[in-house]
Amino acid sequence: MIYEDIDVGTGLALGTHRFSAEEIRRFALAYDPQSFHVDEAAAKSGPFGAICASGWHTASAMMGLLARHFGRLAERARAAGREPVAPGPSPGFDDLKWLRPVYADDAVTFTGTILAKRESASRPAWGLVSIETVGVNQDGQPVFSITAHVFVARRPGGG
Amino acid sequence: MIYEDIDVGTGLALGTHRFSAEEIRRFALAYDPQSFHVDEAAAKSGPFGAICASGWHTASAMMGLLARHFGRLAERARAAGREPVAPGPSPGFDDLKWLRPVYADDAVTFTGTILAKRESASRPAWGLVSIETVGVNQDGQPVFSITAHVFVARRPGGG
Repeated sequence: MIYEDIDVGTGLALGTHRFSAEEIRRFALAYDPQSFHVDEAAAKSGPFGAICASGWHTASAMMGLLARHFGRLAERARAAGREPVAPGPSPGFDDLKWLRPVYADDAVTFTGTILAKRESASRPAWGLVSIETVGVNQDGQPVFSITAHVFVARRPGGG
Repeated sequence: MIYEDIDVGTGLALGTHRFSAEEIRRFALAYDPQSFHVDEAAAKSGPFGAICASGWHTASAMMGLLARHFGRLAERARAAGREPVAPGPSPGFDDLKWLRPVYADDAVTFTGTILAKRESASRPAWGLVSIETVGVNQDGQPVFSITAHVFVARRPGGG
């Protein structure tokens, strides 16, 4: 993935993550042990009516699919005889929104859109690419959105 | 935790999370399999110089400590003969910043500050509380910050 080859407006099909009850519970026991994520009985009388995934679990699942998407792009470059260029670190994310609960066995499909790109003033070898990512459940309802900012290497010599 | 008892400006000591190499790798293999999180050799020549935690791992560790802090407040209320009130869901977070890498064996101490509170117009039983959370490593360097928005139940009948 090279900065110069990225076009604003391009869509990215990142894939689908199915949230099993077991994975929801395992993630939440480690990182978000609130009753509506880990305790079936308490969740029934809680704000969501049933166990649902930690919002951080949803965000992490999105990141897993995004990282695997970058991995596939690198493999494709390698197969075409080009040197694969991994994206660099991310300085942060904006507009993290949990729009609806993600319940056990929900399958959330994430898609991205390249929102913007700009050259980095402080790091001339890199550009900063902004990707809006939306997660939609099996009923077509948006459950999650976020805007990611990722450093992407520029083509040596430019152009 | 009751909305009316929360004072803007209050500090919260959330605790410390130690990021073992094993946990960094386990989280990243599931949710962020980029080479600088999972592959020692690749990480050495990568942007951070060594394996470091996924930013989502750092955020999730913060959430784990925040949820346990809420749990301790509930236990204290129960011990004092009061009905514990769990915080409600969060509509989202703002200003997620990864300020420095979190390396293997780093111990990150998270503290919170109550930034603001306001009654919810749409949900009269709840107030919305904003908490700024900062994570600082064992060398005193900030590595992470975020502002959380959490729904907190209001006292029935008010006051």
